[in-house]
Amino acid sequence: MSTVKHLEEIEVDDCERLLRSGVFGRLVLVADGRAEIVPVNYTTHGDAVWVRTSPGSLLDRHADGVPLLLEVDHVDHERAHGWSVVARGRGERVPDGERTPEERRTPGPPRWVRREDEVWIQLRWEELTGRRTGSGWDLTDGLPVSRVGR
Amino acid sequence: MSTVKHLEEIEVDDCERLLRSGVFGRLVLVADGRAEIVPVNYTTHGDAVWVRTSPGSLLDRHADGVPLLLEVDHVDHERAHGWSVVARGRGERVPDGERTPEERRTPGPPRWVRREDEVWIQLRWEELTGRRTGSGWDLTDGLPVSRVGR
Repeated sequence: MSTVKHLEEIEVDDCERLLRSGVFGRLVLVADGRAEIVPVNYTTHGDAVWVRTSPGSLLDRHADGVPLLLEVDHVDHERAHGWSVVARGRGERVPDGERTPEERRTPGPPRWVRREDEVWIQLRWEELTGRRTGSGWDLTDGLPVSRVGR
Repeated sequence: MSTVKHLEEIEVDDCERLLRSGVFGRLVLVADGRAEIVPVNYTTHGDAVWVRTSPGSLLDRHADGVPLLLEVDHVDHERAHGWSVVARGRGERVPDGERTPEERRTPGPPRWVRREDEVWIQLRWEELTGRRTGSGWDLTDGLPVSRVGR
């Protein structure tokens, strides 16, 4: 067990690196006046997060054109530390058939859920922020999955 | 890699069991019209979640008397499955000195952040919901930390 630490901000470059190296996070939005949180597998392409959803889902119905955030975090219970990164922007609903050829060539997020049909939600980030408990340890230490070099 | 699954609801008893066995989650609230997400260590006491925060923090300033949710999840990237549980209720700010003797005797959440002074946020849950990808696997499998028997 490490000593107790202060909360510290994560620099924007590190936020972006952590966001791009992750594959699982949580989308948060306000729908019908109520905060909602939806766990998602995601991928990044350019400066945007992409997630799949099903037609008729909460994201399909409510994420288009509204403020959206994706939160990604990692905690190490043994070492008693962790970090969290939040990407904020506006959601955009993109039917599968409307993705550009380049977007189609980008590998999608891991596919854990079976869907007959799918819709994509894009979140172009306008703000990246992050916090960590303490400094002096590698933020990418112990990450279970990474798409890019650390 | 398992086969792709459907999303399924988690029964409320299992939601409660997972919530009570966890120690880390994310509080979500709407503050000044904007959705906010705050990673927290938590503990449960009775039918309430308790978290510590610092005087002046976002939770201290905005969580009292407003709708609050705590999300807890666990994913297994190798097995390509996961679950998420959400507890909803109203936040209550409790200064450290106003906790009952019984509340003081309850072990608090892991203390990863150093604070000069602390305030407690209590979330008495009124609604517990959860989702999992597929069935036929143990929801408590691979959990890094557990306070109670699984």
